[in-house]
Amino acid sequence: MTREIRIGMVGYKFMGRAHSNAFSQAAHFFNLKARPRLKVVCGRHEAEVKEFAGRWGYQDYETDWRRLVERDDVDLIDISTPNNTHAEIAIAAARNGKAVFCEKPLASNAAEAEKMLEAVRKNKVFHAVCFNYRRTPALSLAKKMIDEGKLGRIYHYRGLYLQSWAMDPGMPLIWRMQKGAAGSGALGDLGSHQVDLARWLVGEVAEVTGLSETFVKERLVSRNETGLSASGGRKKAKVTVDDATLFLIRFKNGAVGSIEATRFAPGRKNYNQLEINGEKGTLVFNLEQLNELEYYDATESKETQGFRTISVTESVHPYFGAWWPHGHIIGYEHTFIHTAADLINAWAEGKTFQPNFHDGLACQKVLSAVEKSAIKRNWVRL
Amino acid sequence: MTREIRIGMVGYKFMGRAHSNAFSQAAHFFNLKARPRLKVVCGRHEAEVKEFAGRWGYQDYETDWRRLVERDDVDLIDISTPNNTHAEIAIAAARNGKAVFCEKPLASNAAEAEKMLEAVRKNKVFHAVCFNYRRTPALSLAKKMIDEGKLGRIYHYRGLYLQSWAMDPGMPLIWRMQKGAAGSGALGDLGSHQVDLARWLVGEVAEVTGLSETFVKERLVSRNETGLSASGGRKKAKVTVDDATLFLIRFKNGAVGSIEATRFAPGRKNYNQLEINGEKGTLVFNLEQLNELEYYDATESKETQGFRTISVTESVHPYFGAWWPHGHIIGYEHTFIHTAADLINAWAEGKTFQPNFHDGLACQKVLSAVEKSAIKRNWVRL
Amino acid sequence: MTREIRIGMVGYKFMGRAHSNAFSQAAHFFNLKARPRLKVVCGRHEAEVKEFAGRWGYQDYETDWRRLVERDDVDLIDISTPNNTHAEIAIAAARNGKAVFCEKPLASNAAEAEKMLEAVRKNKVFHAVCFNYRRTPALSLAKKMIDEGKLGRIYHYRGLYLQSWAMDPGMPLIWRMQKGAAGSGALGDLGSHQVDLARWLVGEVAEVTGLSETFVKERLVSRNETGLSASGGRKKAKVTVDDATLFLIRFKNGAVGSIEATRFAPGRKNYNQLEINGEKGTLVFNLEQLNELEYYDATESKETQGFRTISVTESVHPYFGAWWPHGHIIGYEHTFIHTAADLINAWAEGKTFQPNFHDGLACQKVLSAVEKSAIKRNWVRL
Amino acid sequence: MTREIRIGMVGYKFMGRAHSNAFSQAAHFFNLKARPRLKVVCGRHEAEVKEFAGRWGYQDYETDWRRLVERDDVDLIDISTPNNTHAEIAIAAARNGKAVFCEKPLASNAAEAEKMLEAVRKNKVFHAVCFNYRRTPALSLAKKMIDEGKLGRIYHYRGLYLQSWAMDPGMPLIWRMQKGAAGSGALGDLGSHQVDLARWLVGEVAEVTGLSETFVKERLVSRNETGLSASGGRKKAKVTVDDATLFLIRFKNGAVGSIEATRFAPGRKNYNQLEINGEKGTLVFNLEQLNELEYYDATESKETQGFRTISVTESVHPYFGAWWPHGHIIGYEHTFIHTAADLINAWAEGKTFQPNFHDGLACQKVLSAVEKSAIKRNWVRL
Repeated sequence: MTREIRIGMVGYKFMGRAHSNAFSQAAHFFNLKARPRLKVVCGRHEAEVKEFAGRWGYQDYETDWRRLVERDDVDLIDISTPNNTHAEIAIAAARNGKAVFCEKPLASNAAEAEKMLEAVRKNKVFHAVCFNYRRTPALSLAKKMIDEGKLGRIYHYRGLYLQSWAMDPGMPLIWRMQKGAAGSGALGDLGSHQVDLARWLVGEVAEVTGLSETFVKERLVSRNETGLSASGGRKKAKVTVDDATLFLIRFKNGAVGSIEATRFAPGRKNYNQLEINGEKGTLVFNLEQLNELEYYDATESKETQGFRTISVTESVHPYFGAWWPHGHIIGYEHTFIHTAADLINAWAEGKTFQPNFHDGLACQKVLSAVEKSAIKRNWVRL
Repeated sequence: MTREIRIGMVGYKFMGRAHSNAFSQAAHFFNLKARPRLKVVCGRHEAEVKEFAGRWGYQDYETDWRRLVERDDVDLIDISTPNNTHAEIAIAAARNGKAVFCEKPLASNAAEAEKMLEAVRKNKVFHAVCFNYRRTPALSLAKKMIDEGKLGRIYHYRGLYLQSWAMDPGMPLIWRMQKGAAGSGALGDLGSHQVDLARWLVGEVAEVTGLSETFVKERLVSRNETGLSASGGRKKAKVTVDDATLFLIRFKNGAVGSIEATRFAPGRKNYNQLEINGEKGTLVFNLEQLNELEYYDATESKETQGFRTISVTESVHPYFGAWWPHGHIIGYEHTFIHTAADLINAWAEGKTFQPNFHDGLACQKVLSAVEKSAIKRNWVRL
Repeated sequence: MTREIRIGMVGYKFMGRAHSNAFSQAAHFFNLKARPRLKVVCGRHEAEVKEFAGRWGYQDYETDWRRLVERDDVDLIDISTPNNTHAEIAIAAARNGKAVFCEKPLASNAAEAEKMLEAVRKNKVFHAVCFNYRRTPALSLAKKMIDEGKLGRIYHYRGLYLQSWAMDPGMPLIWRMQKGAAGSGALGDLGSHQVDLARWLVGEVAEVTGLSETFVKERLVSRNETGLSASGGRKKAKVTVDDATLFLIRFKNGAVGSIEATRFAPGRKNYNQLEINGEKGTLVFNLEQLNELEYYDATESKETQGFRTISVTESVHPYFGAWWPHGHIIGYEHTFIHTAADLINAWAEGKTFQPNFHDGLACQKVLSAVEKSAIKRNWVRL
Repeated sequence: MTREIRIGMVGYKFMGRAHSNAFSQAAHFFNLKARPRLKVVCGRHEAEVKEFAGRWGYQDYETDWRRLVERDDVDLIDISTPNNTHAEIAIAAARNGKAVFCEKPLASNAAEAEKMLEAVRKNKVFHAVCFNYRRTPALSLAKKMIDEGKLGRIYHYRGLYLQSWAMDPGMPLIWRMQKGAAGSGALGDLGSHQVDLARWLVGEVAEVTGLSETFVKERLVSRNETGLSASGGRKKAKVTVDDATLFLIRFKNGAVGSIEATRFAPGRKNYNQLEINGEKGTLVFNLEQLNELEYYDATESKETQGFRTISVTESVHPYFGAWWPHGHIIGYEHTFIHTAADLINAWAEGKTFQPNFHDGLACQKVLSAVEKSAIKRNWVRL
């Protein structure tokens, strides 16, 4: 493990922290083919980015990502910023020959995503998108079981990503509620994870039809923007993204499905849940219980068939051997650590990583088709 | 309890048995305003109907429902036959001045349902449709809580009715798989329950869009029909109903929803499940755990908020006081007993019963709109 | 099914109702070798017993059990009265040549139980004790699986019977809280079920040690007794039974176990729960979810091992074929119906029924040993 | 955060790794009052300890703990070695004026634990024992709720620590199965956690009675010892610790309890489970679902009472604010990180940490009493 992969991180909030932790921990628990080094972190507010750099052991920091992507001492640009900035940063990074690791969704829309893919291909740089849930041990096991034919022909995909943090009408208009910054609301934020999992586990989407709804139509302008009206009171502005989007799917292989993403489901905190029914069995997963995979094997003796809860914590299970004895569960952040470990190894060996910008674009196309169907009120083919 | 309500039952299979048990048990556990008497049961096969009459204590039997509906010694005609026979029997019963209690779905299609409603109104007879799940104690409690405002404004309805009995491609083409006899497949059989619950718990449906799929397109003709081909082998015929139907809903009150009905979900046996998200909380119900109602109260202290599982088995809960001490659970058949008890009381007091043919028709209109949307590939308003 | 078994029921409260329902329903759902007839019900309060007789279709009633046991038109005496009356009634019934079916626990103590067994043996009458939970389909399946060796050598039995109805200190001193009437408290009422299941599923008990506790030491004398003190206030009296008893077990086959019975566990309503660990797997059952059996098969591939929840509602499962399609669950009262059906068939064919008075006595001996150990503060061998 | 706490770690296996990770991560997520520095790690096998030091960023390593405890550049000795070495190392560390953090159980027996406590008191050094589960957010919340009186008077404690890793009779005789190295088996390894939690959550233990069993009496001598017999075959030796221990408890405050620890429960992987019943409610916790706390509030309206599952992942919950948004769960290792964070802060501020050697000794006394009771077959007072 002599070679290093020097990380240039853009963003230091929720995702910047999750990604920094991922690179930091990967080397503690996995035997990697390159040593990750937290080299530079970049953010607009110097005091904050400096504190972050100190806490996580970054050797340096920048306050302008344009300078970051030009630095010679950085190998990989990790983009953990709002969605509408992904394209510009990624394209600049690619042009500078950097490997690029981008948070999901890849872009604000399909057109941007196309340009991003074009940039990484043209500049022949390593590219990856952070659909981290693929590397939850339980979902990695699900994928393996499906690939081995344990479900047989797949009939149904049923995906939910339910949250509730936006329900308070008093919550101000943050960037995730503005089309300009976020591209879309629940659809892009939550639905994108579901679309990626559906594509990965079931197959390509043939067509969709959906509906979007914004339950709270106006919100107070956030305090850290100019949020005062002429009269001195707080100003309200329109919420320009969806609070909830639901859609039906026909997959190319004949399976049918549905996906729902909402920020208005009390009690559902990070409920990224899916069920897949095939001719031989069923799989069920829920991110709030991420160490478990439910499996119904319809080929067993009828007398003892049942939904079984697999504790995906055995050393024979994907990734878990790197951690603790069985039953000693892992958490949300570990999905990023697994992603980082695989990414580092793929980069070190010059291999393609999945999911990459192709997947990011394919996902974006489905999201765009859903948005279009919601407006046109009919099915949209991909 | 001097007065009697004399039952004339049409059908003695699954539903005939469930209904006979319901009338038989209602008087054991509830204090009724009329005494139910199992008077006459009607079926085409004399030996079988006779055995059934003896087992359940019917005083007489008939083999032609036309004779049954004309009998003077019968007050109520209970229709527990395949869907395509409901209309004819119900209309004849109404014309003979009989109260009519009809299994769901009310008819094969909305046109038939309209005629049935017209018949009972014109003849001023008591009418009821057996959407028995409304009288599961847990769902009765859910309705009460919603009516009291415990959820506040409702945002989401999410309904699933998943079964798996039809998955074996070797299963023959029974009546439930033929459009002529059944009207539709999973949609009418399972989806109708969901539509009734959605209307009852959330409100009227404004518009729908859906998809239907038949995964196993052909099946062997059933043995008890002429099922041999010219070559002596077993004959196959087309399955003319849906194995699965999924649809999206906009309710008139602004809530959005989705319903899925399928016979192709391994491990799901009678999984009639629903979740309702409102501004103040969430309710979840699953018929396979019918004594329980899950409730999330978002107005409580954040520190101790959580999904609670209410064991709906207290004497303060709907219907349960008639049964056993708390925690001593009841089963599927009890939903029919509660329906029978309420029906008998309403009949005895000359009151309207709900759900009745109005509800049966309203449900049928939603089902028809779903079928239409699946063909036209767009939204259909009600 | 020409022959009849004419039931003489003693008691018409909770258990009288459960048993009457059992005999009434058995013939509706099972093909029996004798036809049960609800002949006579007996109770001290004439108005009440008469109402009960009418409701359930008993042909006659008595107010003195001594007259009942002498009647020629009764074949079986069903004893559903408080524990301290079982012995006298059962012995008199046996002397009159009646078959005897007795609620659990068989007696107030082991000495009484010995006399009862002696009486039925000497008079060569059919005898049965109502440990109805053996005939829950899930526990019948558990027994079958254990007998087939699916768990291999058994290491652990872990039984809980938790309730909460007695927690309110304001609840008056009912018969179940008085040693004279009940023999013991949680131990005899709840622990007896656990002891029967442990003996049946694991094997005979070698020795026990336990502790008993009465958390609420005094209670108001019940209103329907002379409950006024000299001063005119309500009188309190000592609770003379255990609110909770816990004990450790060594089985003769080398397994170890523990059983706990309490009436002081908030939220636990009828939580009769057990777990059995063997060298090849684990079984878990909980009466509040009585249609399910949890099973862990440790011999499967490590990758997909997991606790599976068997919905014990298939036609291949014990008893369920008589009821509804799979997933259409049954309830508490059905355990009595299955017991009645098997009892009627055994009686009709002149066979021994299990559990019978031998089991009732064996259970009582364990309960007595537990009581003794709690006083002597050491282990007691059986 | 200028001051440093320089860690000297003894042991680099399972616990050495968990502790190193804890100190490493604490500073990433918590604002600490001293900066932890991984200074020296100590182990007998130089190649392995060197690799470990490199992976975790220790600045140096030692192969003899005697040298480690004498080093001037170390502030705290962290003891993560087999139980029988704890006393010698801790006492030497204390004599050298080092703070001591010791894995549980504190010692092999109560006598050793007494000496350890004496040493830290005499030398006035900071001392802590790693009962890390106290700092699971869910159990910290449970403690808070109990202290606030949410359960009222406590009646029952019911603890299980079930594992299954030792079930294979072919597993060799590791140190955890030898009395010399481990002190005891399931009792000390698993039962000690339960005893600590019971003391902390309910109160001091008054008396106990228990049983111990060793199901697999002999095992192959481990390969990395001289394991060949004279005949050249593998040698077997006696298992000198308990595979399972069960005991009953009377607490000083009148509550009663039971604890079971076993390594022979298939499907139970790290099932550290407890239930506490009080006059106002019940709490249930299971380490395999460590982000959840079940709570039954018996003071609420009867209509909507139910066991609620609190997702202990809100920023208002203990420790969770340092991590991710709600519903983004944490894992096993986080219990060590919370322990490290609190320990560092207590050390930096010169405060006492809990649990410390007093708790370690109190726990050891209960374990000794259980062992004694199992031999003497009666109750043992503490």
